[in-house]
Amino acid sequence: MALPHAAPAQPIDIAPLGPALTQTLSTALFKSEGLEVMRIVLPAGKTLPAHKVDGEMTFQVIEGEVELLVSHGNTEDRERLHAGQLCYLPGGVVHTVSALQDASALLTIVLRHPD
Amino acid sequence: MALPHAAPAQPIDIAPLGPALTQTLSTALFKSEGLEVMRIVLPAGKTLPAHKVDGEMTFQVIEGEVELLVSHGNTEDRERLHAGQLCYLPGGVVHTVSALQDASALLTIVLRHPD
Repeated sequence: MALPHAAPAQPIDIAPLGPALTQTLSTALFKSEGLEVMRIVLPAGKTLPAHKVDGEMTFQVIEGEVELLVSHGNTEDRERLHAGQLCYLPGGVVHTVSALQDASALLTIVLRHPD
Repeated sequence: MALPHAAPAQPIDIAPLGPALTQTLSTALFKSEGLEVMRIVLPAGKTLPAHKVDGEMTFQVIEGEVELLVSHGNTEDRERLHAGQLCYLPGGVVHTVSALQDASALLTIVLRHPD
């Protein structure tokens, strides 16, 4: 899907989805020169398999609760995050997200440009 | 105030402040190589005077409602944003934030490094 271009100052809805969550797909909200923002939707019991993104990011839980498994070389950190919490992830960190409850989350990713 | 260094995967609370809002100050949540995240607190009727930041940013209302006045050269955009909405602002854009209700908001700013 082509990412929508960021429109300055235009309100974008990221409220909890509530009962509509299980019928809603993850969505790219916008992309700008230096940022990409998306909402991921993860029904209870579902997992985003281990992956990484190049840029630094924040991961903010909008509703529900997730478990974030972050790999650092041979060790792992396991954190629970619920609605109203966010965390920071450096670029290139392998992580897995599992929904403990129906959950949606806002991902704000810094885009890295070739030097 | 020195900004806390970003600790990967550590949960950070950004839930609505509710009745504590008027006794809470704006806070820098963390700074990393490429991101700075802060929560601003603006009681009803208060205004953050016109200012700009170098980097691109997202502005997300956590609770309450604000009016965002954005200057583009000789024209202005006036937008209302309430809890559950965010917007994008390019770097260097002059903007003013006024609280229509007791409000808190999350600012996520991309740090620009000298080329």
